[in-house]
Amino acid sequence: MTTQELISQINQKKSFLCIGLDVDLTKIPPHLLALEDPIFEFNKAIIDATHHLCVAYKPNTAFYEAYGIKGWKSLEKTIEYINKKYPEIFTIADAKRGDIGNTSSMYAKAFFEDLGFDSVTVAPYMGKDSIEPFLAFKDKHTIMLALTSNQGAFDFQTKEIGDRELYKHVLETSKNWRNSENLMYVVGATKAEYFKEIRKIVPDSFLLVPGVGAQGGNLKDVCKYGLSKNIGLLVNSSRGIIYASNSNDFAEKAAKKAKELQLEMKEILEKFKK
Amino acid sequence: MTTQELISQINQKKSFLCIGLDVDLTKIPPHLLALEDPIFEFNKAIIDATHHLCVAYKPNTAFYEAYGIKGWKSLEKTIEYINKKYPEIFTIADAKRGDIGNTSSMYAKAFFEDLGFDSVTVAPYMGKDSIEPFLAFKDKHTIMLALTSNQGAFDFQTKEIGDRELYKHVLETSKNWRNSENLMYVVGATKAEYFKEIRKIVPDSFLLVPGVGAQGGNLKDVCKYGLSKNIGLLVNSSRGIIYASNSNDFAEKAAKKAKELQLEMKEILEKFKK
Repeated sequence: MTTQELISQINQKKSFLCIGLDVDLTKIPPHLLALEDPIFEFNKAIIDATHHLCVAYKPNTAFYEAYGIKGWKSLEKTIEYINKKYPEIFTIADAKRGDIGNTSSMYAKAFFEDLGFDSVTVAPYMGKDSIEPFLAFKDKHTIMLALTSNQGAFDFQTKEIGDRELYKHVLETSKNWRNSENLMYVVGATKAEYFKEIRKIVPDSFLLVPGVGAQGGNLKDVCKYGLSKNIGLLVNSSRGIIYASNSNDFAEKAAKKAKELQLEMKEILEKFKK
Repeated sequence: MTTQELISQINQKKSFLCIGLDVDLTKIPPHLLALEDPIFEFNKAIIDATHHLCVAYKPNTAFYEAYGIKGWKSLEKTIEYINKKYPEIFTIADAKRGDIGNTSSMYAKAFFEDLGFDSVTVAPYMGKDSIEPFLAFKDKHTIMLALTSNQGAFDFQTKEIGDRELYKHVLETSKNWRNSENLMYVVGATKAEYFKEIRKIVPDSFLLVPGVGAQGGNLKDVCKYGLSKNIGLLVNSSRGIIYASNSNDFAEKAAKKAKELQLEMKEILEKFKK
């Protein structure tokens, strides 16, 4: 998917919501556990109920790997389902990969070609040659960790290298990498004040923003500083939406939560366009 | 496996060799491609031919994920085979994972419990709460990237934060994390001169050293500065061993290459003990 297609979808749906499909068998409605593939059935119901309210789905690979081959199968079925039934949706493999060049190429192949995701999240620690193999794929997007939403973000990411914090150094440096136009960045919502600084470095890049809801971030604050001229934000919510209920009405309740966020986004976008 | 069991194995075999099982279908002997699971058959032959010469096997997960569910199945069969037939061998899932707390717990479950690896590699960018869920597992080991062997290591890892480089900061900080005795570190062999500095910070920790051979590192230099009182080194070779030949004699040739390294290690260990 091209960036322009993503932007069109945002304008059409008046939403920049990403829904995180982090499916934990201990948290889904118990009646699903009797089915052959509870994870896929759960995702399918959530997707059917919310696809018109969001522009992206983001399965976190950890939740699938934890169930071994069965989990990988559920992941494969989920991405196939989205790509076939809702091809306009932007898909994110939240995998946080990164390795030496030939190994990163294998990961890129796994997520972009074998599974057919539009994008994958990566970690920057190993530098340029660990990320460029992902960037080489046309119309695929590589979403690199910049400033994460967890407490541990302060261990290294905000430490100063010379006159600027590590995460700013990561943003700045990555702009010089080959095919850097295929880069997006993860920026946690728990630190809305940081968006102002980040937009000075990457004014137009898309930012994937976790941490709205369960992790305490505020949507309005994020948008105030984070919106770019092409919107440039994908705001993720996982648990707050998918676990809104664990009864028979789980998909309906998830859609209700997604709708609340979408309406907030619509209002923000309408104000922003003026 | 306890650290003491790993050390005993090293002393017994007079080897601290780790063999990287990074299996690429385009590089293995073509006659294996006719079999039902070529990756597993390749690994099995390599393992049977080399298990007495090495103390650890390290499959890199990227090479398995690239083949989807079939690849994950090959990984599962490989680790099962090692654990059953050669339980004394230390196993490393080279996965370079790391995410927010509840997600890292899922990865830890995947590699330690579901697959049954002794250890997993992780990336430090997200800090303490992304690593501690791995450290919580008793007699399991978490191998964190410190200084990697690729060119991109110089993008961020060697940048100075205050009076010391980021990778030293990572080493120093991680010593204060809960269950940090379960930490080992990845230190690339291409920079043998760095080992002296690293041993000042983590005198006793095990270091997993990639980059001997294909990536240009020198075993003697690494050992000169890197050996600790309990040896404390696992030196990895992947391509240099497993792709020594791509004919019918591939396992035999791999064993020959492994033997060469083991003999070098034996000599180093004997000198070191004096």
